[in-house]
Amino acid sequence: MNAEIITIGDEILIGQVVDTNSAWIGQHLNEYGVRVVQITSVRDDRQAIKSAFDEAFSRADLILVTGGLGPTKDDITKHTLAEYFGTSLVRDQATYDYLEKWITAKGMRFNELNQKQADVPEGCVVLTNRNGTAPGMWFERDGKVLVSMPGVPFEMKALMSDEVFPRLQRFFQLDHIVHKTAITYGIPESELAIRLEEWENALPDFLKLAYLPNPNNIRLRLSAYQGEEQVVNQEIDRQFEKLKQIIPGNFLGYDTASLEQVVAEALLARGETLSVAESCTGGAVASRFTAMAGASG
Amino acid sequence: MNAEIITIGDEILIGQVVDTNSAWIGQHLNEYGVRVVQITSVRDDRQAIKSAFDEAFSRADLILVTGGLGPTKDDITKHTLAEYFGTSLVRDQATYDYLEKWITAKGMRFNELNQKQADVPEGCVVLTNRNGTAPGMWFERDGKVLVSMPGVPFEMKALMSDEVFPRLQRFFQLDHIVHKTAITYGIPESELAIRLEEWENALPDFLKLAYLPNPNNIRLRLSAYQGEEQVVNQEIDRQFEKLKQIIPGNFLGYDTASLEQVVAEALLARGETLSVAESCTGGAVASRFTAMAGASG
Repeated sequence: MNAEIITIGDEILIGQVVDTNSAWIGQHLNEYGVRVVQITSVRDDRQAIKSAFDEAFSRADLILVTGGLGPTKDDITKHTLAEYFGTSLVRDQATYDYLEKWITAKGMRFNELNQKQADVPEGCVVLTNRNGTAPGMWFERDGKVLVSMPGVPFEMKALMSDEVFPRLQRFFQLDHIVHKTAITYGIPESELAIRLEEWENALPDFLKLAYLPNPNNIRLRLSAYQGEEQVVNQEIDRQFEKLKQIIPGNFLGYDTASLEQVVAEALLARGETLSVAESCTGGAVASRFTAMAGASG
Repeated sequence: MNAEIITIGDEILIGQVVDTNSAWIGQHLNEYGVRVVQITSVRDDRQAIKSAFDEAFSRADLILVTGGLGPTKDDITKHTLAEYFGTSLVRDQATYDYLEKWITAKGMRFNELNQKQADVPEGCVVLTNRNGTAPGMWFERDGKVLVSMPGVPFEMKALMSDEVFPRLQRFFQLDHIVHKTAITYGIPESELAIRLEEWENALPDFLKLAYLPNPNNIRLRLSAYQGEEQVVNQEIDRQFEKLKQIIPGNFLGYDTASLEQVVAEALLARGETLSVAESCTGGAVASRFTAMAGASG
């Protein structure tokens, strides 16, 4: 099943904000078996937003939209959604009551702008936002779904986890998608590709290989968009075992493995500890170790 | 003048990589007076890439493309560009000679995959990449321009600075775009909007106001896409002075001002120094101070 992500906001297009929402959504959709075919960022402009909706509906079954739901005048997503679906804004009493309680409990005033956050396009399913004033909104059309969420990352993430993913599992027949990435170091990309040519050519058709170069290492990702999950996982593991035998001294780990993680695991296994004396890095090395769960051990 | 950015790569759509290139490009295009109207991320898929080109050409005069130019089989942007512009790949001898020198000087082998990096679609202008093997490529069609660059951020940035921006200034008549952001703290977004309503309503038409909420502060951006540069700058400064008088105790600074920067400036002005004792943050506070130029003072 195909999905598209649309992020709305001038701040993204002028480069004031890096769109991190799309990567988070894309990663999690893949875990739920939904393939993302395009990510689009558009301005706070009614025509641009509606064109993006049209194009996304022509390619995908699911459209996830973030941004433009704040209480201020520059945020126009909600009005544009009402126009797009040919409906108008109506007060959702449950959201109104929820917001009144939530805001006054924080010792703040339930002012007219907060009250307006309870107005939603008629006919949508309202998804409760436990971390902010803008509710999520779920729209259905011809068996396809569009979900609008606030752009503030922690509000969007909670809405996705609590409301959107469970509904997607009920609404759609989801596939299995598997990605696994091996991290190599010490061999330049083109040399690595030549040494792995035979291995790459012998990969089964359902596995797609991608090279992801970094300054310090080359990551090799195997992806499968079809096939039975267990069979696919076993085949990927088997292929990476073959890879390790081709470049035994140049394999760092899998997926998000980092140098500090490999070092920390080795130290923990040996019961040893770490001291750092930092000059130019000013605490960055210590900070990267400390950021790992269990690092104090 | 309008521009669009297209980033190519499955790694973006599955959320393995956050697209930071687009924000950097967007920010710098605005500084050169070019307005970005859409950012699109597509898969390593010929049809998806060509559709994105078509749509971008229908909306913009300039299209900046990153990604998919590596030497390995999963990278297909160069072949797709040749197909799209109805031409074929030819060896660019100057690039070949440059790459041979550059790679052997690094003590590496100038292998067949590196050699193929010198093949480009016939008719494009080749832009020298001083930091990698994939050259940039400049295409012109009906007075519009498409530039293809590698996705590795430091390679793309050098190409933009050394080659693309100077050419854009010669090729296009560029406008002036001004953005300035005031950072406030201590007032929730909806309350701030109510207190600033009169100020906001009195803004001249050529200034657009945006609210950017963070967990710790609300940023207010004024943007102008037209008008004489000096007049616009003076008017923005005048408006922000009025703003400061409305919320005198809630103003932190402008643009990228951060708490550590404000603290560091105050300490420097007083000739004082800073010691930190960190537990949970494990060096992160020290690291943020150290990252600022001049922090050792």
